[in-house]
Amino acid sequence: MTAFASDNYAGAHPAVMAQVAKANEAGHVVAYGGDPVTAEATELVREHLGSDAEVFFVWGGTAANVLCLESLAPLHHQAVVCAESAHIYVDEGGAPERLLSRKLLPVATPDGKLTPELVASRLIRFGDWHAVQPKVISITQSTELGTRYTHAEIRALADVAHERGMLLHLDGARIMNAAAGMGCSLREATRDLGVDALSLGLTKNGGLGAEAVVLWDAAHAEGFQWRRKSAMQLASKHRYLAAQAIGLLQDDLWRRSALHANAMAQRLAAGVREVPRVRVTQEVQANSVFAVLPVPLRDALYAEGFIFYVWDEGAGEVRWMCSWDTTEADVDAFVDAVARHGHAQA
Amino acid sequence: MTAFASDNYAGAHPAVMAQVAKANEAGHVVAYGGDPVTAEATELVREHLGSDAEVFFVWGGTAANVLCLESLAPLHHQAVVCAESAHIYVDEGGAPERLLSRKLLPVATPDGKLTPELVASRLIRFGDWHAVQPKVISITQSTELGTRYTHAEIRALADVAHERGMLLHLDGARIMNAAAGMGCSLREATRDLGVDALSLGLTKNGGLGAEAVVLWDAAHAEGFQWRRKSAMQLASKHRYLAAQAIGLLQDDLWRRSALHANAMAQRLAAGVREVPRVRVTQEVQANSVFAVLPVPLRDALYAEGFIFYVWDEGAGEVRWMCSWDTTEADVDAFVDAVARHGHAQA
Amino acid sequence: MTAFASDNYAGAHPAVMAQVAKANEAGHVVAYGGDPVTAEATELVREHLGSDAEVFFVWGGTAANVLCLESLAPLHHQAVVCAESAHIYVDEGGAPERLLSRKLLPVATPDGKLTPELVASRLIRFGDWHAVQPKVISITQSTELGTRYTHAEIRALADVAHERGMLLHLDGARIMNAAAGMGCSLREATRDLGVDALSLGLTKNGGLGAEAVVLWDAAHAEGFQWRRKSAMQLASKHRYLAAQAIGLLQDDLWRRSALHANAMAQRLAAGVREVPRVRVTQEVQANSVFAVLPVPLRDALYAEGFIFYVWDEGAGEVRWMCSWDTTEADVDAFVDAVARHGHAQA
Amino acid sequence: MTAFASDNYAGAHPAVMAQVAKANEAGHVVAYGGDPVTAEATELVREHLGSDAEVFFVWGGTAANVLCLESLAPLHHQAVVCAESAHIYVDEGGAPERLLSRKLLPVATPDGKLTPELVASRLIRFGDWHAVQPKVISITQSTELGTRYTHAEIRALADVAHERGMLLHLDGARIMNAAAGMGCSLREATRDLGVDALSLGLTKNGGLGAEAVVLWDAAHAEGFQWRRKSAMQLASKHRYLAAQAIGLLQDDLWRRSALHANAMAQRLAAGVREVPRVRVTQEVQANSVFAVLPVPLRDALYAEGFIFYVWDEGAGEVRWMCSWDTTEADVDAFVDAVARHGHAQA
Repeated sequence: MTAFASDNYAGAHPAVMAQVAKANEAGHVVAYGGDPVTAEATELVREHLGSDAEVFFVWGGTAANVLCLESLAPLHHQAVVCAESAHIYVDEGGAPERLLSRKLLPVATPDGKLTPELVASRLIRFGDWHAVQPKVISITQSTELGTRYTHAEIRALADVAHERGMLLHLDGARIMNAAAGMGCSLREATRDLGVDALSLGLTKNGGLGAEAVVLWDAAHAEGFQWRRKSAMQLASKHRYLAAQAIGLLQDDLWRRSALHANAMAQRLAAGVREVPRVRVTQEVQANSVFAVLPVPLRDALYAEGFIFYVWDEGAGEVRWMCSWDTTEADVDAFVDAVARHGHAQA
Repeated sequence: MTAFASDNYAGAHPAVMAQVAKANEAGHVVAYGGDPVTAEATELVREHLGSDAEVFFVWGGTAANVLCLESLAPLHHQAVVCAESAHIYVDEGGAPERLLSRKLLPVATPDGKLTPELVASRLIRFGDWHAVQPKVISITQSTELGTRYTHAEIRALADVAHERGMLLHLDGARIMNAAAGMGCSLREATRDLGVDALSLGLTKNGGLGAEAVVLWDAAHAEGFQWRRKSAMQLASKHRYLAAQAIGLLQDDLWRRSALHANAMAQRLAAGVREVPRVRVTQEVQANSVFAVLPVPLRDALYAEGFIFYVWDEGAGEVRWMCSWDTTEADVDAFVDAVARHGHAQA
Repeated sequence: MTAFASDNYAGAHPAVMAQVAKANEAGHVVAYGGDPVTAEATELVREHLGSDAEVFFVWGGTAANVLCLESLAPLHHQAVVCAESAHIYVDEGGAPERLLSRKLLPVATPDGKLTPELVASRLIRFGDWHAVQPKVISITQSTELGTRYTHAEIRALADVAHERGMLLHLDGARIMNAAAGMGCSLREATRDLGVDALSLGLTKNGGLGAEAVVLWDAAHAEGFQWRRKSAMQLASKHRYLAAQAIGLLQDDLWRRSALHANAMAQRLAAGVREVPRVRVTQEVQANSVFAVLPVPLRDALYAEGFIFYVWDEGAGEVRWMCSWDTTEADVDAFVDAVARHGHAQA
Repeated sequence: MTAFASDNYAGAHPAVMAQVAKANEAGHVVAYGGDPVTAEATELVREHLGSDAEVFFVWGGTAANVLCLESLAPLHHQAVVCAESAHIYVDEGGAPERLLSRKLLPVATPDGKLTPELVASRLIRFGDWHAVQPKVISITQSTELGTRYTHAEIRALADVAHERGMLLHLDGARIMNAAAGMGCSLREATRDLGVDALSLGLTKNGGLGAEAVVLWDAAHAEGFQWRRKSAMQLASKHRYLAAQAIGLLQDDLWRRSALHANAMAQRLAAGVREVPRVRVTQEVQANSVFAVLPVPLRDALYAEGFIFYVWDEGAGEVRWMCSWDTTEADVDAFVDAVARHGHAQA
């Protein structure tokens, strides 16, 4: 089975597995991050994100997001502005609200991207005790809809945030797909644009299960160790998280894998665009394709064993996601099926 | 370096690594636990814990404990009685209080073990709105002090709990060491004694980072999926957690590894007991040895590169922990050093 | 100064003050609600809300709402659907999210009123672990916009809730204005329509500071005493809360006061409707008038010392609120000022 | 009935009631604390506590404590050291843990009073991520056991706290009894000794239901308005809280009432000390008397209609509390009954 359901249906990249196995050969090492593998991984993240980066590994992406938000806004009344389609708002089972006892302020967007204009509707009632106070703007890059902010767009949001005494968080579950797609470094895609906290996704791009919180202001990192521990994200055998980062960041494996996944999405989109009554609904700027298609066509694909998610039942919209290990043959077989059934049903 | 600091300084057992590698060869599988590896692991846990067991994998032991407690006592005013030395009380950075917004009721013990008599001091004020209401007794087996409850002792606590409308949680970070030591099955060591929720530790006994929550009453498991997700412990590439359980539980590797670690602790204790002014302070019933020794002796061991924790600075008490990969040579070298410096300083 | 800012700018009704004074003459009474004044007040609430009503007094309206919601939905992943203009969503400083560690699901409305159609957009993803689960629909009657649900409209929402295994909460900070306006009893306005939990507002309609939580299902009330205590809303000298309820409910003072406030709002609306460029924006169905008017006119009114809130700065919309003690002369003086400046500026 | 159960069985002092009534005559005033009564009350508190005092009124004592603690220690991992008998630890239904998601670190004491020596056992593991970090020492003055810290004792605790980068909170539910007993001002009893946050109790000493949070460092007060609102303690008709403070603080009513209550406790203690087998167990330094007496004697008193609490069932210890309105005749009648039954049963 090659699924187009999600990039987390894919396994780990062999180079990542190799690093995990190598880490295991070290025998006894200090637990909780005091080991040489973690030191090496941290150094490597700093090479990519800047020597001023404070780096903390965690297991999951939800945790990376929640801990970034807590670092930027530690108090209950400090609220987070995000897109209505943001993963933190709709797909984390209420974890941000649970862990942070906090309100998120959603904004509807056409394409998953916030803008200064859209955000403005939420930047109100500063100083009013009856209302939570916007403190963080949180964006996702690439977005949950497979679109991508330009550098200028992120910078504009960072400026809005900083002018209002707020901070900018970037949910980078797929930042690698975005940076690879723009041909820039991870730092150029984040800190250089004004990002204050980054959830650096490792899992979807070939990891087993590891993410990193990256902060640049030492004040935001103060107390992070306790935040991580009390949020139940401090791994005892920490080396296995760190090893995954080494696997992905060494020799720019992250970029090659992300470029490949992006290319597969382009190939898929190009293929299905030719099929009658299939309409690609979002710009394809990362590794996913959103499309509207007739239900009978969808059902025919399911009947052939293809796996993918319905994104919006009402609109008949689906999501097709490619990953580091999706092959051209996988895509072609899928496109062929779409075309076959699409033309037959036309 | 072979440390006697903690069993989480050890790496993963090769059989566990092999299962993780095997799980990776499956290509695309359903994320979040809907994969065949998870199905196999769940079945295997049920073989060990009972076909009525509800099994949920999480990353860390703190999370397993917190989610067990929440499953047994979902409301804020339901309190947890535990030993003052319990990991949940002193070593989880306040995670239970943070996640559950809840009070733990500690009881001082000489050996890390609760008794009905000790617990009685906390089973008061039932029905009084001004006081939190005891709902769970939480014990650790084997304990944080390397001691072990007998079957009768656990059953007595379960009876006390159930008679008062309460429930019994067992923090089994090292339940494998206890069950192996008593020569019984994991079920005989838990459910058959009246345990209602088990944190099944996998990491310390040769895993990379995985634990399981085991519940037996379907009512306790209701809503668990949301609890786990909102507690940020739902792994996307879930197969890698499950694979660890397979590695440990298949062919009773867990028992062999635990028996080995226990035997190393016995060997270590036997060796140091001969040394003047070294006093073993707790029964050695699992894989750790607690001892009081003079500070200069401690310092001499540190100077040779041995790594271990001071447990109680005031009392001059240290903890020496053995693990699945501690060798007889490791122990003998350590005992030799203790003896050498101990006699020299005597 | 007679303000049109809010009904909580008004003082307490003399009959309420008299009951408080009378309660004080009782000398020593049992604290925390075990006193005869509380018994009498509880009985009186039951006369109005039904003999099956469980009644708990608290200090504030935010607390009444939060405790109602917790009673209906005690678990973190159980979400609350409400209007985007709901007090719980915008004006409680994030208290629901803080106390309940919970997500609210807002729905935009034109008039502050939910409908089955509007709610439907939020009744999705049942059974999906990644999403919070709608458990409560919360409505405000009369609404924050001065509008009023009909009996049929509330019943329809109750039916939607109950069909989906959900429950209906009614924020009744101004339920007295609604019930008085519809000429029905408090029970006919709530429980008889399918309401499961009521925040019964006392403060705005002539109290000093007291509200009641009313539940009808004993299962929802279970543990309420601990919820109230741990939410810091259990008054030690509880009689003074109860006395306010007696003052308001005895001899239907609540109805007379509410009818008066409603009538003052009608008088105000009728008066300003004649003024050029003043547009009343919502149906006037309770004790408030929402209107759009030119900024210079608004400023002229402020300059004369009138106090009222801007509701929507962008739209130039203001809120004028009447209360139990607003006099015809107060209204006429205000209308006169609006007319005077309105015509002068026209 | 004149109860010796608690000072919150007493009503409000007539002078307090008069201020509340007077506040009600003001007609419309700004809500949420923007009114002249609040301004006057705040000024009056500052006259007593210092012109540098930041003053915030709340409804209840639990809330005052929780908000003080949050102001001094806003983060989850910052723990509070307190006596095992502290109200915050045993009698607030877990409110501190619920609202603050935080651990309290209890210390056993013989008399309800912490000392630097006792506190030392909890001032450990600074910098250790696995353990919560002590940030606040919380004391109660006068204590829950009716005892009183000397000025030097409080100063010593403040010094310990400040030397460790910690802060000192004083639960002053009965600070008025203490200050009156020592013949000093409220400031001399608190801030001048190094107290950083004070829960200023008004209710027990003749209020209806109001307390104040007093902070002296502007940094601790930052964001307090949102803390209070989100903790559901911002009163809309705020003037009625403020009026109580005026009643108590004007003309030093607080001191006269507290001295009276203290004197009644002395009178009671002196009386019962003469009775065989009645043993007063704590120094009588405020308005309560703790005593051990035979159960039949206790029962005989209950049978005569006297109301008081059993403090420690196992020890046979009871608490007799006097209040501002306890009369000499009340005490004498009670002492007479104790003596009568005591001698009869002897």
